[in-house]
Amino acid sequence: MSSAGSLHPIPTATDQSLAPLPSSLVEAAVDAALKEDLGLVGDITTQSTISPSQKAHAAIVARAAGRIAGLQCANIAFWKCDPDIVFRIEQPDGADVRPGDVIAGVSGPAAAILTGERTALNFMCHLSGIATLTAQYVKAVEGTGASICCTRKTTPGLRALEKYAVRAGGGQNHRFGLFDAVLIKDNHVAAAGGIKNAVGRVRSEAGHMVKVEVEVDTLDQFDELLKLKADAVLLDNMSPEQLREAVRRAKGKLVTEASGGVNLETVREIAETGVDLISVGRLTHSPQALDLGLDFQG
Amino acid sequence: MSSAGSLHPIPTATDQSLAPLPSSLVEAAVDAALKEDLGLVGDITTQSTISPSQKAHAAIVARAAGRIAGLQCANIAFWKCDPDIVFRIEQPDGADVRPGDVIAGVSGPAAAILTGERTALNFMCHLSGIATLTAQYVKAVEGTGASICCTRKTTPGLRALEKYAVRAGGGQNHRFGLFDAVLIKDNHVAAAGGIKNAVGRVRSEAGHMVKVEVEVDTLDQFDELLKLKADAVLLDNMSPEQLREAVRRAKGKLVTEASGGVNLETVREIAETGVDLISVGRLTHSPQALDLGLDFQG
Amino acid sequence: MSSAGSLHPIPTATDQSLAPLPSSLVEAAVDAALKEDLGLVGDITTQSTISPSQKAHAAIVARAAGRIAGLQCANIAFWKCDPDIVFRIEQPDGADVRPGDVIAGVSGPAAAILTGERTALNFMCHLSGIATLTAQYVKAVEGTGASICCTRKTTPGLRALEKYAVRAGGGQNHRFGLFDAVLIKDNHVAAAGGIKNAVGRVRSEAGHMVKVEVEVDTLDQFDELLKLKADAVLLDNMSPEQLREAVRRAKGKLVTEASGGVNLETVREIAETGVDLISVGRLTHSPQALDLGLDFQG
Amino acid sequence: MSSAGSLHPIPTATDQSLAPLPSSLVEAAVDAALKEDLGLVGDITTQSTISPSQKAHAAIVARAAGRIAGLQCANIAFWKCDPDIVFRIEQPDGADVRPGDVIAGVSGPAAAILTGERTALNFMCHLSGIATLTAQYVKAVEGTGASICCTRKTTPGLRALEKYAVRAGGGQNHRFGLFDAVLIKDNHVAAAGGIKNAVGRVRSEAGHMVKVEVEVDTLDQFDELLKLKADAVLLDNMSPEQLREAVRRAKGKLVTEASGGVNLETVREIAETGVDLISVGRLTHSPQALDLGLDFQG
Amino acid sequence: MSSAGSLHPIPTATDQSLAPLPSSLVEAAVDAALKEDLGLVGDITTQSTISPSQKAHAAIVARAAGRIAGLQCANIAFWKCDPDIVFRIEQPDGADVRPGDVIAGVSGPAAAILTGERTALNFMCHLSGIATLTAQYVKAVEGTGASICCTRKTTPGLRALEKYAVRAGGGQNHRFGLFDAVLIKDNHVAAAGGIKNAVGRVRSEAGHMVKVEVEVDTLDQFDELLKLKADAVLLDNMSPEQLREAVRRAKGKLVTEASGGVNLETVREIAETGVDLISVGRLTHSPQALDLGLDFQG
Amino acid sequence: MSSAGSLHPIPTATDQSLAPLPSSLVEAAVDAALKEDLGLVGDITTQSTISPSQKAHAAIVARAAGRIAGLQCANIAFWKCDPDIVFRIEQPDGADVRPGDVIAGVSGPAAAILTGERTALNFMCHLSGIATLTAQYVKAVEGTGASICCTRKTTPGLRALEKYAVRAGGGQNHRFGLFDAVLIKDNHVAAAGGIKNAVGRVRSEAGHMVKVEVEVDTLDQFDELLKLKADAVLLDNMSPEQLREAVRRAKGKLVTEASGGVNLETVREIAETGVDLISVGRLTHSPQALDLGLDFQG
Repeated sequence: MSSAGSLHPIPTATDQSLAPLPSSLVEAAVDAALKEDLGLVGDITTQSTISPSQKAHAAIVARAAGRIAGLQCANIAFWKCDPDIVFRIEQPDGADVRPGDVIAGVSGPAAAILTGERTALNFMCHLSGIATLTAQYVKAVEGTGASICCTRKTTPGLRALEKYAVRAGGGQNHRFGLFDAVLIKDNHVAAAGGIKNAVGRVRSEAGHMVKVEVEVDTLDQFDELLKLKADAVLLDNMSPEQLREAVRRAKGKLVTEASGGVNLETVREIAETGVDLISVGRLTHSPQALDLGLDFQG
Repeated sequence: MSSAGSLHPIPTATDQSLAPLPSSLVEAAVDAALKEDLGLVGDITTQSTISPSQKAHAAIVARAAGRIAGLQCANIAFWKCDPDIVFRIEQPDGADVRPGDVIAGVSGPAAAILTGERTALNFMCHLSGIATLTAQYVKAVEGTGASICCTRKTTPGLRALEKYAVRAGGGQNHRFGLFDAVLIKDNHVAAAGGIKNAVGRVRSEAGHMVKVEVEVDTLDQFDELLKLKADAVLLDNMSPEQLREAVRRAKGKLVTEASGGVNLETVREIAETGVDLISVGRLTHSPQALDLGLDFQG
Repeated sequence: MSSAGSLHPIPTATDQSLAPLPSSLVEAAVDAALKEDLGLVGDITTQSTISPSQKAHAAIVARAAGRIAGLQCANIAFWKCDPDIVFRIEQPDGADVRPGDVIAGVSGPAAAILTGERTALNFMCHLSGIATLTAQYVKAVEGTGASICCTRKTTPGLRALEKYAVRAGGGQNHRFGLFDAVLIKDNHVAAAGGIKNAVGRVRSEAGHMVKVEVEVDTLDQFDELLKLKADAVLLDNMSPEQLREAVRRAKGKLVTEASGGVNLETVREIAETGVDLISVGRLTHSPQALDLGLDFQG
Repeated sequence: MSSAGSLHPIPTATDQSLAPLPSSLVEAAVDAALKEDLGLVGDITTQSTISPSQKAHAAIVARAAGRIAGLQCANIAFWKCDPDIVFRIEQPDGADVRPGDVIAGVSGPAAAILTGERTALNFMCHLSGIATLTAQYVKAVEGTGASICCTRKTTPGLRALEKYAVRAGGGQNHRFGLFDAVLIKDNHVAAAGGIKNAVGRVRSEAGHMVKVEVEVDTLDQFDELLKLKADAVLLDNMSPEQLREAVRRAKGKLVTEASGGVNLETVREIAETGVDLISVGRLTHSPQALDLGLDFQG
Repeated sequence: MSSAGSLHPIPTATDQSLAPLPSSLVEAAVDAALKEDLGLVGDITTQSTISPSQKAHAAIVARAAGRIAGLQCANIAFWKCDPDIVFRIEQPDGADVRPGDVIAGVSGPAAAILTGERTALNFMCHLSGIATLTAQYVKAVEGTGASICCTRKTTPGLRALEKYAVRAGGGQNHRFGLFDAVLIKDNHVAAAGGIKNAVGRVRSEAGHMVKVEVEVDTLDQFDELLKLKADAVLLDNMSPEQLREAVRRAKGKLVTEASGGVNLETVREIAETGVDLISVGRLTHSPQALDLGLDFQG
Repeated sequence: MSSAGSLHPIPTATDQSLAPLPSSLVEAAVDAALKEDLGLVGDITTQSTISPSQKAHAAIVARAAGRIAGLQCANIAFWKCDPDIVFRIEQPDGADVRPGDVIAGVSGPAAAILTGERTALNFMCHLSGIATLTAQYVKAVEGTGASICCTRKTTPGLRALEKYAVRAGGGQNHRFGLFDAVLIKDNHVAAAGGIKNAVGRVRSEAGHMVKVEVEVDTLDQFDELLKLKADAVLLDNMSPEQLREAVRRAKGKLVTEASGGVNLETVREIAETGVDLISVGRLTHSPQALDLGLDFQG
């Protein structure tokens, strides 16, 4: 009886054009998810019914059309259940799939595959849901020159993964948090005593690698902003006409971002105003999970 | 200049009939969320524009109708930004709100309130979204005797909070993970060589405090199960007729749970078959965030 | 000079019929134990006296008779000291050993083996002590149909490992914590205003996968309980006559558990009353460590 | 409805002559213990049966005679369940109690007291068991001048707490781990090519604040050691006659420690040989839990 | 004997114009530092020699002239040793002190003050050393319009604190890590096949809130860069003449940063070339600790 | 497309005479450092400009003369960025290098090497700076018989690594914290009512493996100490004449340590007084980073 370990250390994700996330970040998320599913004893159903020596071949299969994201999570989830599981990616993150498409093969000890199944799928369905929704918005604005970007309205604890899923969907990331860029909103303006003061204070304190965006509600505010040194403007809840006028006045001097009241019906009209970016909170706060399943073969 | 600390230690949640979560669990979730928003430096916009001495009164307000969940998270999020913030709950978890209703008052240093705003709302919008969706399903089956329950299709890392939100919505929790109850599915049955073997093996190994549920796809399988010692049956993807017949054959000997193809259009018909429970994956895998905002007063 | 790593990743435990614990759980326990033994510098005695190139063959040997548990911990402890150590299990968890029996071989760098020795043995002696004591109780009731189970009186931080050791000893696990099953005790009954109220409240709130057990001190209380929907009864500190009568009245309608005043002298008499289970706190709160040692060969 | 927090921050232990442990260390141990008892939902029995507004007075009471240790853990355990619980120490760590003695009062929300009960008692029964056993050994050698000390045979993860319990029992601590002192054993001597080489190597590498002890099995080895610069000798498994002779030869030049085959029957004879210290593994590897309970008043 | 806790929860830092760090970040750093100083038992010298009831008044005093940073750390360090310690800031972070100046008063239990002394001072001496060195550079370039900024050459694990200390010294922060801004260096240019390709690729992938800086070694490279959309240029190891020419060519179209060979002798000449920023690695990789001590009064 | 992992698990450090640190300790430090550099998304510059398939050969090269320490950190840093990176040590920790010397080769995916570069160098430059400064002091006292040792004035969170770097520089470690040895200073003496009381109290409480050192400022105090049982004396801020006299009076009965006012100009004169040890705070609180760089080949 030997306990010689497996020859498969923690998997790295090099099979895709999308840059993978730092692996310790993904590993921590997967650990937390497995811990809540396994508790202090593990998968008691599988332990009682499946022999440790039984092998299986399974496949992660699409049951609906969509854009894939989260394979790195699934791979590590299975690996942590048993490093002998071989995970074979067929459709990498960022790929579009149709119902029935095989996304990845999962081969190895049947018990470990069953134990890891739900954790792997929970990551993939959630992240692919975000990627799929993002891709729908991206497609809706195709050809207009506008980009789709996300917000800070993310699920607590999953921001890195969800921002990644937005990238997998073809979207752009807005700032990652309160720390990496400045976004001056109405309350900041009010507290600072006007846009000019607010931008001035920020400019005197923020480092040179920090971008500054300012939210405006009216074209008058925007005119005031145009005299200041901002990198971008958030045009909040403006009508298409107002947006078009704002883009005209911006003349490329700063990046224009539209937000508010954006949905799949309205997004194209907004994009056609010429704004550079449209930010969509629901990409991350209200995605539908993409329907994926694990099918056992034979 | 004194640094004497505040007199408000970590808040406990005693203002509701719903049992609060263990506070260290909530605290850990809030810490993780704040960390991803604050990074290595904090809220650089607010730091530059808002004086530390400025005070504000704000309120968490409903912008849509729904069921509230997550106040414990919001309270701790603000408390961690500054323990001097006073958080006053007006509508506790489990309450139904209409657009415009004030859910909680938030008073104290303006800068800290702005810094904590997004984190607090991300928890509340997500969890209230789950509670709201659950309450819709619960209402749809009102009077039938059926209960609505959740699944293990939760967002990775948030299972405890999401299961709590289901309770806030009036739903029941299914098992919490692979560790606390047995659910024998098709693959387990196949591997064990039949339902009888599977149930037998589980019964000989599981402790006496562990319930055993078995998934069946046909009435024949169910008849086989009825001869064994199971606590519950998961009737998967059956038609209303099949469900009704299964309930009839069960005669109260075990708990009957329907799953598969459940949505707000179909759920009442399913409930009227007499099943005890209907499990709904989308409660936790695809809720819409409830639209809540933070309004500053004055 | 090359730093090419070893080919032995973290070991999995597949050499036994007993289902292994989730490896990240074991790994965390071993990490904590090594950290308290190694501090900020490591094993200063060994570092000064043993050359890194020296190899050794050693064996974990029984110095007393007993039941083995904890090899997964020992294996990971040595692996963490040096992944080049080869750990070869001769007597898996759950095996009975006699003095002199070799339980596992440990081969590799001598320094790392000496450094890991105490941590590995501390786990194995403690867990094997629990398994051994459990096996003694199990043997004492052999043939009666009664099972031996543990309680929540575990060493803080080691519940998962100690409950596992009880399984290795042939015992059953009671609930794992306050979260996975209901056990209504005297204080709950008093606060709720009687057994009926207590069971009723629990039934209306607990999910369908949660078992309910109620502690009773008298046969009258038990009669009251028999009219309610409980899964099990905890017959606390009853005489053998009372237990026998309770079993008679239960007629298989619920699981009967005896507790209180159980020791190796009394346990058989209790078992012969026909109760299903006997719970024994001392299995985990007062086991004697099993005497195991590490012998170096040659 | 207000959520104003309690006025009782984390308790410090200033009520005893014994120096308390670093509070973050105790807090981490208590957190881990509560986490394994509360899981993802908490105490479901109490939540269903006890109103959050119900108050109770309870007392930790001795059911057997012994020496107390672990009140800091119990205090923090209750505090973490609800900071409104007032914990009043009557018999501090290090006190001797008789059956029926009240050790501490616990007043506050009844639900939180019930939820924290087992965790608090698990710490106190285990640590008081160690303190009690230590005190028995200390008493057995009273008047001989010998001290009782512990070993590294501690429960994994609890070394700091168990070493503290030994101090509460009147014992001395041996080294805390492999890092803070040198103990040269037979394998080190063999690998280094003799005691002289081993001590020489250690002396040339260890800092001046590190003590060096050497294990010897024979008086010849001891004579060799006496020529070298060691601080202490571990006289392993020697007869009383050998110990007496070793003490005579030592002439106070180094500390003499006896180990091996020590129990409550043999310890006095060993102590009377004049050795400075007797180390006893079973203080920490095989203590009996001290029987303590929580009694509710009224 | 009562264990009623102290009334001083974790201190917040509101006594300074400099925005404080997120408190959980500081708390984690202080916890780690205390843990390495206290080990498994605490301050054994103080425990044996100082009575828990003894009070003391002490002061953190400057023994050399410099700029202060780190009071938040010191405050929390003492608070964690005993929340009854009152910490009174006399010279906040960012203040300039002379030898003998009192920076903060520390009053409370003498034992806890002695235990926390070294940890508090280790933070303050290190961070004040960085602030002091930064202030010297800032002063050296006074009136030139150039800012001094730091790099990523920080002490592992302390980046947030060290970047904060640079701000306390009057310096600016460069990017915080590899994640929050783009800095294209020679290897990136080489791999991408030229500056144009590198900037192009980055622009097509980076979000709109991400700034892009490019390192150039020659004026020719700089001319190439000027045709592209970069936010800043890093002029590496250029002579003052080259820098002046680069500034002339930049004409305010992008931020100019000089780096390489900067020390207190050369920095003014570099600043006078008109560059916007001068980055100085040694601010964080080689500061001298500021000499501060803790003096006990009376 | 396959995700088969790499064959290089976490590297161990067996290529040097210096005993390596516990690997989990180094791993935790490297994880923390990578996390602060990679944030929630990783190295966005490299991700956009370098193809995942591009390979590179690089070398860590000395740009100044010095003593090396920290290769274990660098190795693990690269390994964590990609386990396919091969790290080949040419000059192990403890080696003296000249400008241009290759210390280690780093081969593998170019992107991962660039991502890990700064983290690896931050560790190595800092720790080699300490080792280099220590080696200068050690060389300055060569032949005198005095040893150089460090203090507790270390960078918060890095004590284990910095103490290791002192060893790499040929220095000795003083105690690691407040927990592993006793150092009685003036405040302890004052509180205890004199040196005799202080030493007496400590001796009655400290275990036999704990060394006791006492700080004295005058020869009179030292005479008092000589009558007591201390292991070492800290002669604080004494003149060479006083030190010589103290050494004479000590007659080898205890270890003599000089401290205060030590620098590279004064250290030899102090060493020549015959003291056993000279402790130097600046070894760890104010080292200059050793200038090391990563050069790409071809």
